[in-house]
Amino acid sequence: MIPSDARTGDEPGGVADRLSLNQMTVPRWTVREAVEGCARHGIRHIGLWREPVAECGVEASARAARDAGVAVSSLCRGGWFPAATHAERQRRIDDNRRAIAEAHALGTDTLVLVCGPATDRDLDAARRMVDDAVAALVPDAIAAGVRLAIEPLHPMFAADRSVIVTLAQATMLAERFPPVAVGVLADVYHIWWDPAVYEEIERAGARIFGFHVSDWITPLPDVLFGRGMMGDGVIELRRLRRAVDAAGYAGPIEVEIFNREIHAMAGDDVLALIGARYRAHVA
Amino acid sequence: MIPSDARTGDEPGGVADRLSLNQMTVPRWTVREAVEGCARHGIRHIGLWREPVAECGVEASARAARDAGVAVSSLCRGGWFPAATHAERQRRIDDNRRAIAEAHALGTDTLVLVCGPATDRDLDAARRMVDDAVAALVPDAIAAGVRLAIEPLHPMFAADRSVIVTLAQATMLAERFPPVAVGVLADVYHIWWDPAVYEEIERAGARIFGFHVSDWITPLPDVLFGRGMMGDGVIELRRLRRAVDAAGYAGPIEVEIFNREIHAMAGDDVLALIGARYRAHVA
Repeated sequence: MIPSDARTGDEPGGVADRLSLNQMTVPRWTVREAVEGCARHGIRHIGLWREPVAECGVEASARAARDAGVAVSSLCRGGWFPAATHAERQRRIDDNRRAIAEAHALGTDTLVLVCGPATDRDLDAARRMVDDAVAALVPDAIAAGVRLAIEPLHPMFAADRSVIVTLAQATMLAERFPPVAVGVLADVYHIWWDPAVYEEIERAGARIFGFHVSDWITPLPDVLFGRGMMGDGVIELRRLRRAVDAAGYAGPIEVEIFNREIHAMAGDDVLALIGARYRAHVA
Repeated sequence: MIPSDARTGDEPGGVADRLSLNQMTVPRWTVREAVEGCARHGIRHIGLWREPVAECGVEASARAARDAGVAVSSLCRGGWFPAATHAERQRRIDDNRRAIAEAHALGTDTLVLVCGPATDRDLDAARRMVDDAVAALVPDAIAAGVRLAIEPLHPMFAADRSVIVTLAQATMLAERFPPVAVGVLADVYHIWWDPAVYEEIERAGARIFGFHVSDWITPLPDVLFGRGMMGDGVIELRRLRRAVDAAGYAGPIEVEIFNREIHAMAGDDVLALIGARYRAHVA
């Protein structure tokens, strides 16, 4: 395969063309404002979230993206599977079925799964609940042509957001299911620290359904809202991007930054900064 | 081996007898106050830190512990190896040689290593610097009869405290050296989230030179000072303690809690609480 760096990056399908805005990086914008912002800044993809999509309406969101000429790279998020009772677990699986249908209606082939925390101290039981829920969703995903992208979260979220915490673990889970249906999402913020990260990216290979970038700044300003803009932190972003490319991933590269300072900036300023930092540190 | 739970726990060498106070759990106490506090509360071991030991004096600290009838379970901490220049790396190795001598003088056979962060974005280079520094220290450790216990830190400290972040990684590093000289320290706060933690404890086996307990509370109040008292969080403490015992570890179990609320409590209240929680959740 031709290393993406051998291309200029600016041609269709080149690295520059793969930049995507994850909507939560500019959370004060509606879906319409976000897709129009992307169009103004030459960003050709957007990752949407269910809550703002629900506010705008699924069909209206899909239309707004189409009208702006912006493709929906993924929908965040499904998941949150472990629960104390069978009935509640079933309710969550049903909610994920709705998320699959929404992803299909939005024209994206990727639903991101943040798998959820344990309900008590029993991590093993929670991990089994995740396995079972993904298994239950596979037929729906295949029928809708929507792929489930299991996102390992940083281990600091193991108690309150995801019992899936390493790329190795997410890939092993995905490999139990057909490759058209279940894969992983590699977010640098969650996986950069892992001594095995490059081996694990290679191993995940064609199971990589998405790639998210931001940065790790230190001291970490906040566990949840502590992500940095690319280039402000310590993550070897370009090396990780090249590794994901070498593993066969050629899809959108989403910028997803939860950070109160960046959230307080004007949306157009954020998008201009993202473009510059993406070219300098990722492409 | 007899499972430790088959004993009452109160006989000499039983689980109750293995409780150790890591000094930083009660950081306002001097060494003398801390060892006398341990003696008052029937705690037979203490983990000391270099800074308060230096304030008291190494010999005076050793004497205070002996006078109180409290054994020094470990000295924290050596490490912090990666640096930008050769001269600075050498300076740090020399400082670790002093730490080995201090451990010997204090009568403990265990020096805890917190290996330090990278100086830039290059994790691989920093990890090689750690390997090289440990290799340089092995002869000194063997000569002094002091074991180096590599402590993997939680991945949320990868950028600012330790490029060694999993028990697997620490064990692989330790296995390059003689088992009398280099092993690992298993601290539940740093390793509990790991999907492979029980396999890794078993693999570490006789390389386990120390075991620290606290808890993971959620939402995490602070990255550095966010540790909880045993029983207040989500960690399966007793299961982990049994796993470490089954791997062959029979040494002290240190309670190490960095938490501003606990640090603000009266020392005797903290020790009484530790005793009760240790019996309820660990022993």
